[in-house]
Amino acid sequence: MVDLTASRARPRVRVESVEEAVEELRTHGLRVSAARRLVLEALFATDTPLSARQIADGIAGRIPRSDVASVYRNLETFEELGLVRHVHLGHGPSLFALAHANAREYVICESCDAVRAYEPTQLDAVRAAVRDVSGFEARFDHFPLAGHCPTCADNRGT
Amino acid sequence: MVDLTASRARPRVRVESVEEAVEELRTHGLRVSAARRLVLEALFATDTPLSARQIADGIAGRIPRSDVASVYRNLETFEELGLVRHVHLGHGPSLFALAHANAREYVICESCDAVRAYEPTQLDAVRAAVRDVSGFEARFDHFPLAGHCPTCADNRGT
Repeated sequence: MVDLTASRARPRVRVESVEEAVEELRTHGLRVSAARRLVLEALFATDTPLSARQIADGIAGRIPRSDVASVYRNLETFEELGLVRHVHLGHGPSLFALAHANAREYVICESCDAVRAYEPTQLDAVRAAVRDVSGFEARFDHFPLAGHCPTCADNRGT
Repeated sequence: MVDLTASRARPRVRVESVEEAVEELRTHGLRVSAARRLVLEALFATDTPLSARQIADGIAGRIPRSDVASVYRNLETFEELGLVRHVHLGHGPSLFALAHANAREYVICESCDAVRAYEPTQLDAVRAAVRDVSGFEARFDHFPLAGHCPTCADNRGT
């Protein structure tokens, strides 16, 4: 599995199209292989984060299939450049998105794996409450808020 | 790696000593091997969650060393019984604790891996803010709150 922690510190690079992303690769002296282009096309084809497996499977026939290990390597390269970021949604695999195009934060249900996406401002009250207790500046775009969704909470009697 | 998701739904069993835990194993028809006893001794020897590796390494000489794969298997068995639970602290390995003995919730720093432990009531205002936005009942004992600690937040200028 890819260790992406360090790369999170890199500045996020905004690219508006596959071609702009390709240009960014070239600027850094990186080869623009067909495999790399496919990953970029997948990320631009959707506005929800994708797993490496979904990209390798061609996101339901929208792009050609590719090799999952290669997808992981290329996502890692893109994350090091600041083009891509990842989010951990519970116990599942990390999901990947364009670094700037999808500035969402997430709340996940540990029981049924439901995921809700929010604009960051919608969670500012949560952030303020965390700051009051701990002094930490919380963010939920990388490690989401976790708990039980209303349905699962009802079922548990909590 | 152990898939522990399903086991989280099991009720937590309170045991006050290694001997009570051993009794719980016997009640479920499980063999009380030396390896299993070592894992229980490790969990009772500290009030902070431990990684399987720390347990296998003998928690700094406090118990004999053992095999990490065996430690994982036994932790899984104990979690299925409700004796043990795990917490994900960022990108690192899961940590394990007695299910009832350490009812803490956690805030982690994504940058420097700092971890702060809180009594659940200390994070009730955060929980209320999450409930207001999403209706979710948040908990931070399994997937912690994540963000940047005051020092790292200062360094980032956020």
